[in-house]
Order: sequence, then structure tokens, then C-alpha cells
Amino acid sequence: MKAVYYEGGGRFALREAEPRPPERGEARLEVAYCGICGTDVHIAHGAMDHRVKAPQVIGHEMSGTVAELGPGVAGFEIGEPVVVRPLDTRGGTPADKGYAHIGRNLKFLGIDTPGAFQGSWTVPAFTLHRVPRLVDLKIAALAEPLAVACHDVRRGELRRGETAVVIGGGPIGLLVALVAREAGARVVVSEIHPARRALASELDFDVVDPGAVDVAEHVADLTAGAGADVVFEVSGSPTGALDMTRFASLRGRIVLVAIFPEAQPVALFDVFWKELELHGARVYEPEDYERSIDLIATDRLPLDRLITAVEPLERLPALFEEHADGSAAMKVLVDCRA
Amino acid sequence: MKAVYYEGGGRFALREAEPRPPERGEARLEVAYCGICGTDVHIAHGAMDHRVKAPQVIGHEMSGTVAELGPGVAGFEIGEPVVVRPLDTRGGTPADKGYAHIGRNLKFLGIDTPGAFQGSWTVPAFTLHRVPRLVDLKIAALAEPLAVACHDVRRGELRRGETAVVIGGGPIGLLVALVAREAGARVVVSEIHPARRALASELDFDVVDPGAVDVAEHVADLTAGAGADVVFEVSGSPTGALDMTRFASLRGRIVLVAIFPEAQPVALFDVFWKELELHGARVYEPEDYERSIDLIATDRLPLDRLITAVEPLERLPALFEEHADGSAAMKVLVDCRA
Repeated sequence: MKAVYYEGGGRFALREAEPRPPERGEARLEVAYCGICGTDVHIAHGAMDHRVKAPQVIGHEMSGTVAELGPGVAGFEIGEPVVVRPLDTRGGTPADKGYAHIGRNLKFLGIDTPGAFQGSWTVPAFTLHRVPRLVDLKIAALAEPLAVACHDVRRGELRRGETAVVIGGGPIGLLVALVAREAGARVVVSEIHPARRALASELDFDVVDPGAVDVAEHVADLTAGAGADVVFEVSGSPTGALDMTRFASLRGRIVLVAIFPEAQPVALFDVFWKELELHGARVYEPEDYERSIDLIATDRLPLDRLITAVEPLERLPALFEEHADGSAAMKVLVDCRA
Repeated sequence: MKAVYYEGGGRFALREAEPRPPERGEARLEVAYCGICGTDVHIAHGAMDHRVKAPQVIGHEMSGTVAELGPGVAGFEIGEPVVVRPLDTRGGTPADKGYAHIGRNLKFLGIDTPGAFQGSWTVPAFTLHRVPRLVDLKIAALAEPLAVACHDVRRGELRRGETAVVIGGGPIGLLVALVAREAGARVVVSEIHPARRALASELDFDVVDPGAVDVAEHVADLTAGAGADVVFEVSGSPTGALDMTRFASLRGRIVLVAIFPEAQPVALFDVFWKELELHGARVYEPEDYERSIDLIATDRLPLDRLITAVEPLERLPALFEEHADGSAAMKVLVDCRA
């Protein structure tokens, strides 16, 4: 089989490799598709060399089929389609307070351990989620980012009839917008890139360019002056960090999805004055995966519209170059089949 | 009767004045005691001249007795002890989403309308809360700041057995600490001023000097590495804004009590990584007043320890000078009786 190894320093190498047989409690999967995540792009640019032990295969947004089961693993059939919830939670401690998905010793498959940009991937069986056989495995490869969006919407305690603003219309932002709309919300997407705005418009969202209109005023007009019930900050921009409190209504919820490596100025006065609730949201819990797979299986979201391209595994190193700034493409899938 | 008028520009004048008879829906109170709030100090220093229409009596942390009832007001006896919840919520709109206590058109009695630093105060009767007759009216004058603390603890969703850190041990900080302990929490108070630390220690709190010890480490030691379940940021300091996310456990709740006029750097990475929940808390709702009065009536908190001095109304202008920096005194009450 083929595997693409991250070699450190922003370099990759395509190699022939042997599948790793599953040990006790593990399953070996044939990888079908694996999407490129923003984190993979960060790794590819050398920004996570302190954490990723090169040489290592990365990638975690995958779909595939069960190829081989290790001792002690039951309940899966060979050939059955699955996706992986890439969290190794076995290092949990009482200090995690039961929040295994964000535990201190959490290992992320495809970052802290080998990933899915290869023909065959061997993982702990407890990370598997079954996918109905009729599902297109390309769409199933979106289960991981869609589970992020399901988690974000759940963390926002979004209720039917509410108004939500999504700051940042990239892949996660649009998935959040889709899940929020499915949950019954009216959704405004604020995005600076024209190509992303065009896609968000095609998906029938109320799309605004924060460089051209006053988004707070737009939201106030929509809500008879109240402001947004829920704001999702997905942009990771200093402007987003300042705007998120402006857009929110009294007791509005803000879901912090984006990663801000540095401390950011936040209008804490707004948090106090409007009694806002800011909720951090990271990865997903098992129920978010189940919700994500349900949404995929019932075909309720136009997820195919988010797939920009499907490329062969050999092209992966080049893809990281081509999508360096991340704004041109939405979701690029890599075909990992032989 | 005597009344102290704020004249603007940081000046006050003591004058003889006539009590204002109650109109329909109003009650006239004989004021017993009125505490000096941090907001009053701000006003006294001219910092709120844009909002306070001079000349105007200020003050809102009061206790007193019913002296006269306007037309349409029933259910109170003359001479009955009461406190005032100083929120005029009559300008509420649907955009407030039912959160009347923080509504956009809210008027704060003693800031936006005349206050209680006078012998007689006439207020809307819906702002009154009854106080049991046996209660010391000096302690009853703490009902307002204690209701703030009750609201803060409720916004923190504090549960019995949890660990709480209070950043800032001033009057509100110590009241929050007392209410949190009464709710069953283990409480750490972090305070830079030695005099305030001394009082907090006398009140049997676990008190730390953030200039001398690593508070995050102290909290980690106490909680087997988990961190605080709830953090109350009451200091209003840039350090507090950065520390609040450090001290919190996974899914820890942070209650933002302090007023930060300017946007402050906040470690949004911590919010994301630990899925923290930051809740703004402003003033109180009626149930917080009821809880506050219950705590006072049942004498469950050593509130007398927070009263630094009781001074005559004539001394009010001088008191604002003497307590300019706010750190020496805890709560100073003004005796407004003739």
C-alpha cells in the first residue's frame, strides 16, 4: 500500500508501506477517503513540529471499511463501512472531571499517533462508528468535521427559531451554519473571502461581507434590535474576537470554535453588560458523531457542495502547497484506495 | 430632612430638603442606612457626569421603613422595614428577551434617578422587598450588594462540594466568597491588598496573595490537578482577566463580575482547550434579592464583619475623599436618620 509520511520541516515523502496488523482491541481499516483539515495544513507548514513525531503519517477526517479485527474485537463485519472518532481517551484521569474528549492526556489520532493518509489504518476499535452501507464514502469522510459542527451547535444550546451568526465561512463555519439551520435557526454567515461568500449564498444563507456592511446593524435589523441568540466565532481573527460580543443579544451565547494561539482583546464590558455566555467548544463527544452520521445517512444537508476536489494520495504533498492559504478550497478529499 | 446632592464635577452639597410625597404606585421611605458603593465613588470622582444629571441625590444600598404610600399601593404597613431593589424596569421591550434586570432602557435608582443619601426617599413600590422586623437595619443595608453576590453565585451554577476561586477580595468579592461557601463550596480568595487579605483570613477563607504565590498551582494542589470548578473575576484587573482562564478546570465556569471599561486580553485558547464557560453577571433578579434577605434574616453569614464604619450623613462628602482609593475600607454605611 501507499502511505504519505510527514518528515518534519514541512516535507513529505510518498512510500510503499506494509499494513500494520491489528493488536488486541484494534481494527485495521482500508481507508477510502481522507479530508485535509486545517490542522493538517498547519502540520504541513512545520507549525506543529514540536508535537508531531516525524516521520509519521497524518490525517484524521477519514472514511473506510473494516479489513481485519484484532483479538477481543467483536461486533464489526469485514467490509463494513466505518468512520473513526480520532480521540484516544485511554489516559483519562479524575482531574478530567469526566470530560474524556478534552482530557489532559488525550491523544489525537493522526497528530499524536499515526493517521489516515495511507491505504490501510490500524486504530483502537473503540474509536469506530458504523456508517450505513448506502452512504457515499466521500460524504462519510465529512463525518469528523460535521461532528465538530454538531458539537459546536450543541455547546451553543441553540433552539428552534433563534437567530445565529457564524463569523467565518470556511469549511467548519459552513458546517456549523448547516447544522444550525437544520436545528431550526435563522443563520447569518459573515465572511471576508468572496469565493466563500459565493458558496454560502448558493447554500441559501444570509451572507454578509463584514468589510462592506455593519454586521451588528444587519443582525439588529433582522431581530427587531435584540441581536443574535447565538454567535459562533469560527474565524480565529482579532476582529472576530471583538465582534462576537457586539453581535450577541442579552444573555446571548457565544461559541468559541476557533483557535487563538495568543491572548486576544475581548470586550468584557459587553459580557458583563449583556450577561453573555461564552462557551469554548473543542472536538466532539460520541453523541456528536452519532448526530453527524445520522445527518449524513438521512441526506439532510447538501454536504457534496462542500467537497471542492477529490485527489489521489500521490498528490497530497502538492495539495498542501496549492492550498497553503486555505481560502480557495473548501474541503479537499484524498482518495487513499490503492 | 437632610439630603446630600451631587453637584457635578466631583462636588457635593448638604442641604435641607422637603420629602417628596408619593405619587400613584409609589412609596415614601424613611431611610435608615445607605452604604457607599464603588459606583458612588466613581460618581463622586466625576467619572459618571455624562450619566448623572446634577444636582442629584445618589446612593442605592439602603435600608429603611415605609413612611407613606401613594394611591394604588397596598400590602405594606407604615413603619414596616424594607429594602429597595433599585431597578426601574418599566421601559422594557421585547428586544430584552425577558431579561428585565439588564434591559436596554433600564433605569438605576440612585444613578439615573434620585437616590437614598437623604432622610426620605420616594420610589416605585414595585422595587420594595420586605425585611423581617427583627433584622438590624445596618445589616439590611447590605441586602443590595449581597443580592449581587447571590446573583453571581447563581450565574456560576455553583454546586455543593465544588472549589471556587474569587479573584479580588473587596466588598463584593468577600460577599461572593461568603455566599459560595454557604452554597457548599470550598473557597479560595486571591487578593493583593494586605488589609483585605487579613479580613478574608479572619473570615476563615483560604486566602492567597497572587504577588507571592502561584495561585494556579495552589488551586491545582487543592483539587488534585483539576483546577477550580468556578472562578469569580471580581478584581477588574488585567491580571485577573488573564488569570481567570488559568485557574479554571475543564468545563470550569467563570463568572465575570467586574466592570472592564476597555477590551482586555483574554486567553481564548484556554476557553477553547478546556471548554470553559464564561458568564457575565450584572446586578440581580428578584429571586436574588429574596435569597439575600433570607440569608440576612437567618443570620447565616458574618455580615457585620464587613461593615467598616457607620458615619452620619453630614460626613458623606468627606467620606468620598477619605475612601478615594477604595482599598482601606470594606463597607462604609451612612446613617441617614434625622
